[in-house]
Amino acid sequence: MNVDGKQMRPIWFDKDTETVRVIDQRFLPHQFIIKDLTHVDEVIHAIQEMVVRGAPLIGATGAAGVYVILVQENNQGMDDTWFSRECGRLKNARPTATNLRWGVNRVQAKVLEQTSHESRIQAALTESLAIMEEEADNCRQIGVHGLTLIQEIAARKPGQPVNILTHCNAGWLACIEYGTATAPIYTAHDAGIPVHVWVDETRPLNQGARLTAWELGKHGIPHTVITDNAGGHLMQHDQVDLVIVGTDRTTRAGDVANKIGTYLKALAARDNDIPFYVALPVSTFDWEITDGIRDIPIEERNPDEIRYVQGWHDDAIIRVQITPEDCPAANHAFDVTPARLVTGFITERGMCDASENAIKKMYPDQFKTD
Amino acid sequence: MNVDGKQMRPIWFDKDTETVRVIDQRFLPHQFIIKDLTHVDEVIHAIQEMVVRGAPLIGATGAAGVYVILVQENNQGMDDTWFSRECGRLKNARPTATNLRWGVNRVQAKVLEQTSHESRIQAALTESLAIMEEEADNCRQIGVHGLTLIQEIAARKPGQPVNILTHCNAGWLACIEYGTATAPIYTAHDAGIPVHVWVDETRPLNQGARLTAWELGKHGIPHTVITDNAGGHLMQHDQVDLVIVGTDRTTRAGDVANKIGTYLKALAARDNDIPFYVALPVSTFDWEITDGIRDIPIEERNPDEIRYVQGWHDDAIIRVQITPEDCPAANHAFDVTPARLVTGFITERGMCDASENAIKKMYPDQFKTD
Repeated sequence: MNVDGKQMRPIWFDKDTETVRVIDQRFLPHQFIIKDLTHVDEVIHAIQEMVVRGAPLIGATGAAGVYVILVQENNQGMDDTWFSRECGRLKNARPTATNLRWGVNRVQAKVLEQTSHESRIQAALTESLAIMEEEADNCRQIGVHGLTLIQEIAARKPGQPVNILTHCNAGWLACIEYGTATAPIYTAHDAGIPVHVWVDETRPLNQGARLTAWELGKHGIPHTVITDNAGGHLMQHDQVDLVIVGTDRTTRAGDVANKIGTYLKALAARDNDIPFYVALPVSTFDWEITDGIRDIPIEERNPDEIRYVQGWHDDAIIRVQITPEDCPAANHAFDVTPARLVTGFITERGMCDASENAIKKMYPDQFKTD
Repeated sequence: MNVDGKQMRPIWFDKDTETVRVIDQRFLPHQFIIKDLTHVDEVIHAIQEMVVRGAPLIGATGAAGVYVILVQENNQGMDDTWFSRECGRLKNARPTATNLRWGVNRVQAKVLEQTSHESRIQAALTESLAIMEEEADNCRQIGVHGLTLIQEIAARKPGQPVNILTHCNAGWLACIEYGTATAPIYTAHDAGIPVHVWVDETRPLNQGARLTAWELGKHGIPHTVITDNAGGHLMQHDQVDLVIVGTDRTTRAGDVANKIGTYLKALAARDNDIPFYVALPVSTFDWEITDGIRDIPIEERNPDEIRYVQGWHDDAIIRVQITPEDCPAANHAFDVTPARLVTGFITERGMCDASENAIKKMYPDQFKTD
């Protein structure tokens, strides 16, 4: 995407220095900082501390992390036990997004086909760059398929903007290009369809207020930040035409893990007969599980993310405490929206219902049964 | 309630100085500041800026405000046109909580029965103090009636705490004593029943994280602050036995206006078969309307409350900006939970279903029909 006139992605390979670089998303929108990832511990730290976040980007960062393992200082070359252990550590950096395991596994397999350290490095680089291109292309296709949804609504209310609510950031910052949830929005806007986005702020880390608002603003898309509490009220008063969110892991039966609070918006959409769509590429499906509430591990993060809020004050990023000192707090990072509340999926292959049969029909080559 | 060994209420009449005093709730839990209200403009400011907040307390402050009008510097004594205009300004300080009109109207009527300025002052003082005592007593009774709900749940899970989720602050800070939503919780705790409270932080002004957590902590009640996004996930995983919230206005048919986000929790409670109760005194019913979504005015507040978060940093209260500069934001302060999602009401007269018939049966003396 275009950031103040410069074409950027949230992760890229810098050919001059042969390093993996990422935008440090912890400090946006206040500071724009770029970070080099030169050791697997830095990659793991970047994923855990949410320097990078969002399912497709975590997958791509994991993939690039396999390359980093092979080129980092003190790498152990052709020692497969060491290599496999380091890939394992990388895969376990965060539990919920399935893309991380997917990205690491894919590059790891390609590496193990090679018989020299140099060819392994080359294979890791080639495969991780291929993943980035595929994810970018998948997002572009999600935009193309999702556009039809927005066109249909626009046709019913000529001259008025289509109001779309989204939760968290499933934009290009979370992906490689376009985003998942935002891809249809960017595509519609670029096609001249008037859109307006309700941006849930997304506590505790405010990815909506910080990242989605920043992205949409840079692209010139009308938007309004609201609290996570407000979506139901807006839906009751006909202010929302469509909900589109991303996902960190979706089961083969259509249960959707996404940022905590997504389930509440899905309930409100159902109560007000508003279509609720989930946009995702193939890499975010978990083909091995059916029941998301039972089987998707939900990350619990540091309760300080609840007790404190980070923001901009006097030209610096600081954090303020909102609770009483030492107040108990709990920080579940994701929830699961059951398939019954999902109107449909928008994927790179097209749209489908949120049912095991429909997903199987869309992905016959991927589908696994017990 | 007991604050560090001192018995306190959020509003009181100081006999020595003959002034109305309030706890300034904007700065809790970080600073404990007491404010004098000596002019109606200060009373209106206190209500609008949420120095005082919560339906019963806004009602009591409005009532005391009528006394302030009569004793403030440059008061216009027996000029009824002036008096009525000032009472009108006071009633319009905030639109959603019906208690404000109720409290002002009640004292205003008593004042107008008197024929001298001195007797009017005395009548205003007597009536506003009576309202405070009645509201305290109503909250005590809400606690007694709501206790049975908690006892029933406790009996089904011996040795384990009853997990209660609440949204915003409907505690003693919002009332005069005990609170509305918290009254059954305090009563159960004091009766030796183990309880644990999930405290929604309640963006944008964090009344849960700041006020409810502070209140419960002072009383020694186990509690955990969570984001407003988290309640649905906890309910899906059997971590919530009961939801109790307060209300700013409830129609005679049982539609409940409360802090924005309440509707989302009611939807999640219904989806997970968890009882969802609303605790309120008679003063919070609006006997003149039926359809809450259509007829309850929803206050829109300054969008800066969304763009910035206030908290404690370096021994001072400051605010940090979380959105991009000049980011569009919208700030609806309340939403309406339809009666169909409410399991029941806990009032000073007992419990009843959320239906026009049940409310009529509970309050035959108050009920008005078109």
